[in-house]
Parts: sequence; structure tokens; C-alpha cells
Amino acid sequence: MPIAQSVKKALSSSSMIRKMFEEGRVLKEKYGDANVFDFSLGNPDLEPPEAFHKTLLRLVTEDAAGSHRYMPNAGYQYVRDALARKVSREHGLALDGRHIIMSVGAAGALNVVLKAVLNPEDEVVVCKPYFMEYRAYAANHGGRLVEAAAGVNFNLNVDAIEASLSEKTAAVLINSPHNPTGRVYPAETLAALADVLLRHGKKTGRFPYLIADEPYRELTYDGVVTPPVLCVYPHSIVASSYSKSLSLPGERIGYIAVSPQNADVELLVDALIYATRVLGYVNAPALMQRCVAELTDLRVDIEVYARRRAAFKRVLDAAGLDYINPEGAFYIFCRVPGGDDTAFTGLLKERLILGVPGSSFGAPGWIRFAYCVSEDLINASANKWPGHSDT
Amino acid sequence: MPIAQSVKKALSSSSMIRKMFEEGRVLKEKYGDANVFDFSLGNPDLEPPEAFHKTLLRLVTEDAAGSHRYMPNAGYQYVRDALARKVSREHGLALDGRHIIMSVGAAGALNVVLKAVLNPEDEVVVCKPYFMEYRAYAANHGGRLVEAAAGVNFNLNVDAIEASLSEKTAAVLINSPHNPTGRVYPAETLAALADVLLRHGKKTGRFPYLIADEPYRELTYDGVVTPPVLCVYPHSIVASSYSKSLSLPGERIGYIAVSPQNADVELLVDALIYATRVLGYVNAPALMQRCVAELTDLRVDIEVYARRRAAFKRVLDAAGLDYINPEGAFYIFCRVPGGDDTAFTGLLKERLILGVPGSSFGAPGWIRFAYCVSEDLINASANKWPGHSDT
Repeated sequence: MPIAQSVKKALSSSSMIRKMFEEGRVLKEKYGDANVFDFSLGNPDLEPPEAFHKTLLRLVTEDAAGSHRYMPNAGYQYVRDALARKVSREHGLALDGRHIIMSVGAAGALNVVLKAVLNPEDEVVVCKPYFMEYRAYAANHGGRLVEAAAGVNFNLNVDAIEASLSEKTAAVLINSPHNPTGRVYPAETLAALADVLLRHGKKTGRFPYLIADEPYRELTYDGVVTPPVLCVYPHSIVASSYSKSLSLPGERIGYIAVSPQNADVELLVDALIYATRVLGYVNAPALMQRCVAELTDLRVDIEVYARRRAAFKRVLDAAGLDYINPEGAFYIFCRVPGGDDTAFTGLLKERLILGVPGSSFGAPGWIRFAYCVSEDLINASANKWPGHSDT
Repeated sequence: MPIAQSVKKALSSSSMIRKMFEEGRVLKEKYGDANVFDFSLGNPDLEPPEAFHKTLLRLVTEDAAGSHRYMPNAGYQYVRDALARKVSREHGLALDGRHIIMSVGAAGALNVVLKAVLNPEDEVVVCKPYFMEYRAYAANHGGRLVEAAAGVNFNLNVDAIEASLSEKTAAVLINSPHNPTGRVYPAETLAALADVLLRHGKKTGRFPYLIADEPYRELTYDGVVTPPVLCVYPHSIVASSYSKSLSLPGERIGYIAVSPQNADVELLVDALIYATRVLGYVNAPALMQRCVAELTDLRVDIEVYARRRAAFKRVLDAAGLDYINPEGAFYIFCRVPGGDDTAFTGLLKERLILGVPGSSFGAPGWIRFAYCVSEDLINASANKWPGHSDT
């Protein structure tokens, strides 16, 4: 076997989302971009804000000496300091630059965190549905996922998480605003989860980390504010990025933030820096670090996504499809008529509408649509849906 | 234990090179930059060539729509095509874009390759001395290093490598031009190694990969040309970067190239793409991909390094120190008088000269100096060395 057996196995059941991405490309070549309603991939089509372009252009024009060299593995100190101020505002407690490690996107951040904390056979609890790459991320570092059942309307199910904890639990991994449902977990749910984790820690002597994957934190609707995580539990770690909030997914710039209330914070940070180094990231890309440090208060125009969300809801309402009202992110999670999400995804594909079956997130009977595409495309899909009266 | 046991263990014996880096900073704060002769870290001080700045500035000014979005995990197709032309020229056979995967530097490339090919307990053979991070890279993916003895004058020791092969050997990992010795492995040595690997493969049914880590390929002296690897053995894989040839280490841009003569090349490429995705790299940074695609024939001014190399040799000659004449890269490997490299490193540090003990590379009795620092600093160190007649 010329490749690793685990990789061979994974390839044969590889990412449904990326598969849809490839299929979408083939369909678009055949039918033209405007005739394929590709709602499969969370690849933001919004350009970064104008202020990003101005900052990037100024930094590149200035071209400071030494600005492309190695810096400490955790990132430039002034960048870490700037991010610490942002995270302090968002998470309701005072971090400083020591509590920030710059990363290669949120996916890089999660791999660094799991490398730093997982012992062989350790467990990472996730709540269904969840982003399927988490399984591979845990496996990369010798861990394995334990799935907890979804809560009512896909809220976090604290009871199910509590029932999933064991002495092998190294971490509980949550994601809010949530992919694929758009749910934002309420503050009281996070407080209840923190209680459970503290109780478990006191009982077993091992406090599971609470890892919050939150690249969508700043993308919320109707005045919803993503509740803070770091201030509710001392063993919490945030993994985030500028992929969604500044529409920079290709540039791979993100960060890790740890709670300063963790008594072992220095050791944890040392482990995160070590993992950043030996996993081969070495450091987050230098130019993008310098860029985002100046733009910590900036985000893409959320109103554009809000209009698309409204348009998508109108389309689904007209098609008679039931869905979870998204409070954040840019996904809408629909109940599949009849319950067979694979069959329904196939049926939609024949109509050139692409979504991702809920089974890919551990939620059969549902389908995810991404609305990080133009409002025109969403509206143009209206008469293509199976439930529509014209069809 | 709040962090992984393996990481805890690694932290207590962590990278000597990075430790020197930190100690160097402390000494410079105390004595001033100009008075500390820091030859410890391979962090190129040369600025990227002017053409890089012009290209970057043009790309950022043009600001093409969609240029910061996700692209396929392997990189932009036109970037892969451009790199394929470069690698074809360097490695004496015809690659196309399918044989290139863009990476987050060479360290990222090596982690992707090892993730893609290692099964648990698999072995990776390295030839002493070697870059110590290789040990962590192999361990990340369940593998372990097997050390082969050094050859005469630190040439590759093909007999020692042959004796180190087993049925568990997944790969032989070489580095040329070589860190820490500056050796460039001759074509006939590579041919002999290929013979050994082919014979081993025919006998055991498992052909070890030959992984060539070659970020220094273009940094050679006295007309030496780094011999090609891909054309000598069908199971060879190149990991490289623009960290040294364009002085961009902080930007994390590199690539993997595979031999098109490998019968399983498609499966291997799929595995490399999968590893790029799930290790959390997702893709190499977008803007830097676009930049290097236009600069495949460019490198920093090698004459600057050649002058520093000459200066360093004069300094060492005056101090009566014996060394390996570097054919490439920007390191010079010296024999330690008396043979205790840790003691000698400490003695030099008292004189504010910083190097890295050979023990850190599996070569006790030697010390590495990096000459990617100014010629003035090298010359100013002249009367500080212990063997110098003034001291």
C-alpha cells in the first residue's frame, strides 16, 4: 500500500462537502454558472472590506525591513497584544498577549489545540450535528470523537454531553454560531455546560477543556450577540479565524485564545506554541498577521448576509420546506420531506440545486444550504424547488 | 496533566535552536545587538528580491475579485502548473501541475507527506547529522526515526542507510544542500541510494519513499548545482519552500512535488491533498501562492551569502578551527576542539558568540554556525574567538 491505511480508508469516504464542490464545478461547466444553484460550500463570496485592502496595500507599499522573516512561533508580540484586546472585549475578561497564539486559520488552531492536549485514546465530545472534519482532526492526534445527541431545535444538549463524559474526556468541542444549523448557543446553556464540566473535573480530577470553534462569532442576525465562553469556564480555549468575518479563507489567518483563569495557563501556552512549531505551521503567515492586527474591529457587511438569509427563507417558505431559523453564520438547515437526505440531495441535484446532506454532519433527515452566494442566485432558484407550485 | 504527556516530555527537552534564539534575545538586550555574535538561527536576514516586492505590490494593487477565497486544497491550478515547470527543469523529468501540491512551507510539506504515507510504527530513515525537528514530524504521524551513521565528510552514507532499512521503512528522508553541514549530495551518491532502495523494494515488496527536503536547493557556491532527485527514483517526493531562496520564511509558502514515474502517483497525490486538508492547513496562503508563481526563476543574491561564507572561513581559519567547506545553504559545521560541543558552545557564549551544538543534530563534537547575518558582524567577531592570538 503506497499510502497510509488510515488515509486510504478516509479517501474512500472523503468529505461529502468537498465532493459536492467538485460536482458543482462539473455541473457549472456543463450548464453555466448562472444555472447551477450551488449552496453546498461555505466559501464566502463577499470581498474583504475596503479597509482590509487599504491596510494590506499600505503594509506592502511600506515594505518594512524584516517583515517576511521568522518571528516567535506564537506570532508577533504586538499582533498578539492587539488580538488580546479584541478577545477580552468579546469574552468578558482580561487577556493579554501571552494568552493569544496566532494560527493558520481555525482549522490550524484546532489541530494545534488537539495536538497540545490529547493523550492516546483520549476522547473529544461533540454535540450532533457537527462539522465532520472534527473527526479527522481528533484522529490526527490519537484521539477519538464521542458524539452527544442534539438538543431541542439543535441547541447544545448539556445532559447528553454530561452523559458522554468519562475519565478519558480531554475536551468538549463546541461551535457557535453553529455550522450547519446557524444556532447561537445561549449564555445560560454555556453556564450549564460549565457547571457540568466543573463538577466532572472535581469528581475525576480531570477538567475537560471546553474548546470553542468560533469563526462565525461576528456573523449574527437580529441583534443576537454570541455569548462569551472564556469567562464562564477557566479551562476554555477559543479557536477562531478571519476566514468568515473578513472573508479571508484562502489566506489562512486565525488565532487561539486561552482563558487567563486557567491555573496551568503558562504550561498550556507552551504546549500550544510547541504544537504550532512541530506540526509544521511554524507560525501564522506574517503579512496577514500584521494586517489583521490593525483591523480587529472590522467585519464584512453583515447586512448582505442578512438579506440573503431573508431571501433564502422566502424561497424555502414558498417550497413548503421546514428549517431552523439561523441566528448566525451563513447556513440554513432544512428538514428533508420524507426523511431520506441522501435521496433528497440527489433529487435537488437533478434540478441543479446543491446542498449537503445532514448525514454528513451526523444529522440524517436534514440538509444544509450555504447562503454565502449572491441574492440573485438565491432568488433565481425559487421556481426550481420540488415543492414549488410550478413543478 | 493539563497537556499531552508526549508534549510535556518534548517541552522539557525542547529545541536547542529555539532556546539559543531566546537566549540570544536576552543577551542582545543586555549587551546591544552589535556586540552579540548570534550565529545560532537560520533566519535569513536578506530582504526578498526587489522583483518580489514589485510583484506583491502589483497583485495587492490589482486586488483581483475572489483572490482571498478558498481554492482547491492543492492550490491554484495555474500556480501548480508554474511550479511544475520549475521542478521539471530542476529535477530532469517532465511534471505537470497534478504533481505539485502547494504547502505551508517545507515544514508543512514534510508533515503532509508523513501524514499521507506513515502507518503506525513505520520507520523513517535519516542520515546523521540531521535537523532535529524531523523526529517530532515523524512522531506526529505515528512513525519513528531510525538514524543511519554519517558518511565520510558528512556525505550521505548509503551503506549505513541500507543497513537501516527494514520492512517497516516507509521512507528515507534526506536534505541537500544540507543543514547543518552545507554538503550537497553528489549525483552518484543519489544514484547509489536509488539502487539500494529499488533493490530493497523488489525484495520486500515495499519501496520506501525517498523524501528530499530541499529548501536550500538554489543556495549553492562555486558553481555547484544541486543534483536532481525526482528523476533517479520513481518513489521520490520533494518538499521545498521559498523561505530561503526568496527569504520569505515568515510567509509560510512551499510546495510538494512527486515523481510522475510513480505508478501510484494519483493515489499518492490524493493522499497528500487529503493530509493538507485534515491537518488544518487547508491550503497554502493564497496571496503568496500567486506571488511565487510569477517568480519561479528568482532567488536572493547568492553572492551576498558567498561573501559571508568567505568571511566566516577566514575567521575560523584565524581561530584555528577545522570545518566542513559548505557547498550550499548558509551553515558552517565546525569540529569542536576537545570534542565537548556543549562545553564549547557555553565557552563561546561567554564571549557572546552563539552557535548550536552538534549534539542537537546527532553529531556530538561539532558545532553549527549560521552565516545568514551581516558580513560586518562576522568580521567583528574575529578577535572574540578562543583560538585567536589576542585572547
